Amino acid sequence: MIGIFDSGLGGLTVTKEILKQTPEYKIIYFGDTARLPYGTKQPDLIKSWSENNLDWLSQNGAEVLVIACHTASSWAYDYLREKIEKPLFEMVSPSVEIALNKTRSGRVGVIGTPGTIKSDIYSRKFASSPRIKLFQQACPLFVPMIEEGWINHLATREVAKEYLKPLIEAKIDTLILGCTHYPLLGDLIKDIIGPSVEIIDPAEALVLKIKDFFDKNSAIQNKIKKGNNHAFHFSAQPYNLELISRLCLDREIQGKIVKND
Amino acid sequence: MIGIFDSGLGGLTVTKEILKQTPEYKIIYFGDTARLPYGTKQPDLIKSWSENNLDWLSQNGAEVLVIACHTASSWAYDYLREKIEKPLFEMVSPSVEIALNKTRSGRVGVIGTPGTIKSDIYSRKFASSPRIKLFQQACPLFVPMIEEGWINHLATREVAKEYLKPLIEAKIDTLILGCTHYPLLGDLIKDIIGPSVEIIDPAEALVLKIKDFFDKNSAIQNKIKKGNNHAFHFSAQPYNLELISRLCLDREIQGKIVKND
Repeated sequence: MIGIFDSGLGGLTVTKEILKQTPEYKIIYFGDTARLPYGTKQPDLIKSWSENNLDWLSQNGAEVLVIACHTASSWAYDYLREKIEKPLFEMVSPSVEIALNKTRSGRVGVIGTPGTIKSDIYSRKFASSPRIKLFQQACPLFVPMIEEGWINHLATREVAKEYLKPLIEAKIDTLILGCTHYPLLGDLIKDIIGPSVEIIDPAEALVLKIKDFFDKNSAIQNKIKKGNNHAFHFSAQPYNLELISRLCLDREIQGKIVKND
Repeated sequence: MIGIFDSGLGGLTVTKEILKQTPEYKIIYFGDTARLPYGTKQPDLIKSWSENNLDWLSQNGAEVLVIACHTASSWAYDYLREKIEKPLFEMVSPSVEIALNKTRSGRVGVIGTPGTIKSDIYSRKFASSPRIKLFQQACPLFVPMIEEGWINHLATREVAKEYLKPLIEAKIDTLILGCTHYPLLGDLIKDIIGPSVEIIDPAEALVLKIKDFFDKNSAIQNKIKKGNNHAFHFSAQPYNLELISRLCLDREIQGKIVKND
């Protein structure tokens, strides 16, 4: 199976894109809802929790692993790729590659959780491209507002205007949505930041990578179970599961509660 | 010492009120920042985590214990008071008693986290007073907005208007702030809901109870260490500690990171 983990439900937007582009594979999902959010927690906790989550997915049949959480990708990927033997994907690099192709002016914006921005992972990823001028903005209120379902609320618009203001002033031409929740605010963000800015959905960027990997590694591809009886597991009952799974995945899911530590 | 725990930093508003009214006692504070927020988590987790936190405080010198978190008070107090031998205070009952005294019309509102409201603790507490008509409203975005320091932000006002609308329509005359963070929004809430509604600060209500207990139990009172070298402990580095401790406690604190499980 393709194993996907996130701190909560945001990884379902990634799941949706994987199912859209490679619908034949069976998905096993793990959301660490007992310990969410990761975005305001400390690096050493995120590393050890992420390792728990990947071990759990591996032990439960995942052949390919996806860290569908930018905060965990930012802090824990370098640590985890030494420890995990199976193919492991993360959220940051695929978007960076797309941004490098798309930007004309070299002025690139990134929005993310405080944890992701503080990790400075995007600066490091863009460091080998001196033509890029990077502008980063933490948006800590976006996830709680999305988890309330306030996608088109006036308050969400006020919050977005505040967060995006420095990026508009910086005249970016490309914006990376550096959190798996943020594509749900894509229309609002586009509306505020204007049509001239190219917005990069991290899930789309990731799935291009996964498909490319499958094309080059048919032995692993063939090992992955086919089927549409996907399984969704959480470390605690998720908050607002019905609403969020409809928003992120276009359908309601049933979650099974399991212990992962 | 007086031992105080909260899931994070909200309990500092309670600490401030305790220090204001009984400044002679030494405080030991524990914030379970690795596992916050409690407000959207499940009851069985909240019970076991709260027990961890109280055990830690007891083992580290607390003679009197305060659950300075409404969600933990709502779900875990009945369970904990059987297990904990030391005097144990919680946030819900003191406000309910004050509200019963203050309301003229009997139309009482409560705002809190989704966890607190879902527990239905306030309905149970008011059940023996048939003249009370209770109106409850979960306000899940208030804590994240306060933790950003957005106390007077236009977006926070939009969020507050939405949450308070049903309570204004219900013509309440008394409003309980059922979360230790919410007193920081007291002025904004008063401005939106109007001067005719009496707003009850849960920390003020609690400290009346503690003082009354000390008056009646001088043996325990005398055992509590005096001094102003208060100690603040957390299970992970708190997010925005400088800003939030200034907002909640009027001064910056240094937190010590400890393991409590």
